[in-house]
Amino acid sequence: MLKKYEMLSKQVNLPRAFMARSVIYRYLNRTNLTHYPELSRLLGCEAFIKHENHNPTGSFKIRGALNFFHHMSREELEAGILVATRGNHGLAMAWAGQWFNVPCTVVVPEHNNPEINRTIESYGAELIVHGEDFYDAQSYCEELVDSAGYYYVQQGNEPEILNGLATMGLEIMENLPEVDTIICPIGGGAGCASLLKTMRELKPAIEIIGVEAQNAASFYNSWKRAEIITLDNANTIADGLAARAVFHLPYVILKDTISDVVLLTEDEILEGIKMALTTTHNLAEAAGAVSLIAAYKISGRLAGKKVVMIMSGGNLNIDILKTALGC
Amino acid sequence: MLKKYEMLSKQVNLPRAFMARSVIYRYLNRTNLTHYPELSRLLGCEAFIKHENHNPTGSFKIRGALNFFHHMSREELEAGILVATRGNHGLAMAWAGQWFNVPCTVVVPEHNNPEINRTIESYGAELIVHGEDFYDAQSYCEELVDSAGYYYVQQGNEPEILNGLATMGLEIMENLPEVDTIICPIGGGAGCASLLKTMRELKPAIEIIGVEAQNAASFYNSWKRAEIITLDNANTIADGLAARAVFHLPYVILKDTISDVVLLTEDEILEGIKMALTTTHNLAEAAGAVSLIAAYKISGRLAGKKVVMIMSGGNLNIDILKTALGC
Repeated sequence: MLKKYEMLSKQVNLPRAFMARSVIYRYLNRTNLTHYPELSRLLGCEAFIKHENHNPTGSFKIRGALNFFHHMSREELEAGILVATRGNHGLAMAWAGQWFNVPCTVVVPEHNNPEINRTIESYGAELIVHGEDFYDAQSYCEELVDSAGYYYVQQGNEPEILNGLATMGLEIMENLPEVDTIICPIGGGAGCASLLKTMRELKPAIEIIGVEAQNAASFYNSWKRAEIITLDNANTIADGLAARAVFHLPYVILKDTISDVVLLTEDEILEGIKMALTTTHNLAEAAGAVSLIAAYKISGRLAGKKVVMIMSGGNLNIDILKTALGC
Repeated sequence: MLKKYEMLSKQVNLPRAFMARSVIYRYLNRTNLTHYPELSRLLGCEAFIKHENHNPTGSFKIRGALNFFHHMSREELEAGILVATRGNHGLAMAWAGQWFNVPCTVVVPEHNNPEINRTIESYGAELIVHGEDFYDAQSYCEELVDSAGYYYVQQGNEPEILNGLATMGLEIMENLPEVDTIICPIGGGAGCASLLKTMRELKPAIEIIGVEAQNAASFYNSWKRAEIITLDNANTIADGLAARAVFHLPYVILKDTISDVVLLTEDEILEGIKMALTTTHNLAEAAGAVSLIAAYKISGRLAGKKVVMIMSGGNLNIDILKTALGC
């Protein structure tokens, strides 16, 4: 099984990331890599934030979505695409689908963030609410594909989505070639794996540290046991980290190349949201803020280094914001 | 007195805005002009946000600061520069000053946002706390200039600051030439005046609507009485709008060309912060969010139009955020 993904991972590479770069700039501006001296003082390192939360649709996912549509043929997408999501993947695919005139059906679990649901619909997608969590939504997608003939986009296992996401790494390298360490959240693993593929080729000695919720340590457990583990549940307030299993393609990339993984408690994740607000004046979603609090947790190891923290997204539910502020 | 500024206003023009454009892109990325379908539904117009809050230093002011330094000679700035600020102007001048190796002294009033003060210092500026409000800080600057020989930068009265700010308008025109209406906050007036100078030349029929706090309606009152009025106080939670008087140079531009001004209560301003959070997932400072709530207030007049709202900055104090969230 993994053999197939080992082969597929060869399609995620530096030349294709550069091709993706030329595609996405038709639709997107570069995101800022901003140096924060006050955050640097707090963390004891040279702290830079990669502001993926500033992208349209509010997350890094839009890079992958645009590159995916660009590489697909009209025939492949004739019946439209289907995605399962908690938020950012669905937002990105629906938004990008509009540029390419591809109808998009999005399956979200019950009790999903209603603001996100409304926004997905506002991008012209059809919204289906099904199941208890992301994995139920995924299973339902597999049923629908069989009956309706959609192209089912499993975000983590599409090489051109990963090549699109890898443009994040190219921008970091262009802005800060002297970067020592990148800290990046891991949900399904696509973002972090893309960075690794790019940065290991451009700068082999770079340190790349993933961040997961203790309550959803699906990659961490898989990595330690050297096989993909599916958790029974992934109860974290960080939607973007709530993965019961890492995708296969990112797994085969991450397992041999990642430098380390930091696990965070739910309280630490909430603290990260507050830290992002007070030190950068940015609304980060829970997963988008974990790189900051992870850096704080391991600051002893980062002393004096040039550290890039990926603020992966900003789509924070207002109720979680209130909780983070102690309201 | 105004005659001098009428003359000076001729130095704020389209060719110089294009020159500023070539300067600022050495340091900045373009900011996004993002279409929000869900906000559009709420406002009954085609709603676009110009995300000046995404700039480094968190506001549009950085455009003016960079262009100012670029045009000054080493001799003029030999003794360093001096600015009075509540926040964004000081942040921008200190940040830009670092690129140009110009020492920067920043005077803020007592009880200024401590997060902002720390950040100004983190950009290497010398911070002086003096007086009850912005106007006391300004008066103190005039004393310091006489004794210490600094170049005192009155943000609103420097043509090259306005030309720098005008690049906002060029970007809007490049992204959305079909724009009907721009809604922009007015504090000292520099941002709105810059937009007017650019847009009236590029698209004479465009509607440009300013927004002020009812408690700090210094431009509105001056405009209605056809002379510059200085208010006794300007007690608004929106730092960026808390101007007891509009600057002279913006006044002479705004008075004959602005389409209208909307005045907001303090409650409406707080509501704007919340609207920005829930509809765009962006942390806007109070002045940065007023264009949204002003659009909501006059939505009957905007029906079906393409409306750009300037989100001028994101440097919101966490206590005001809590108040806006009803905590």
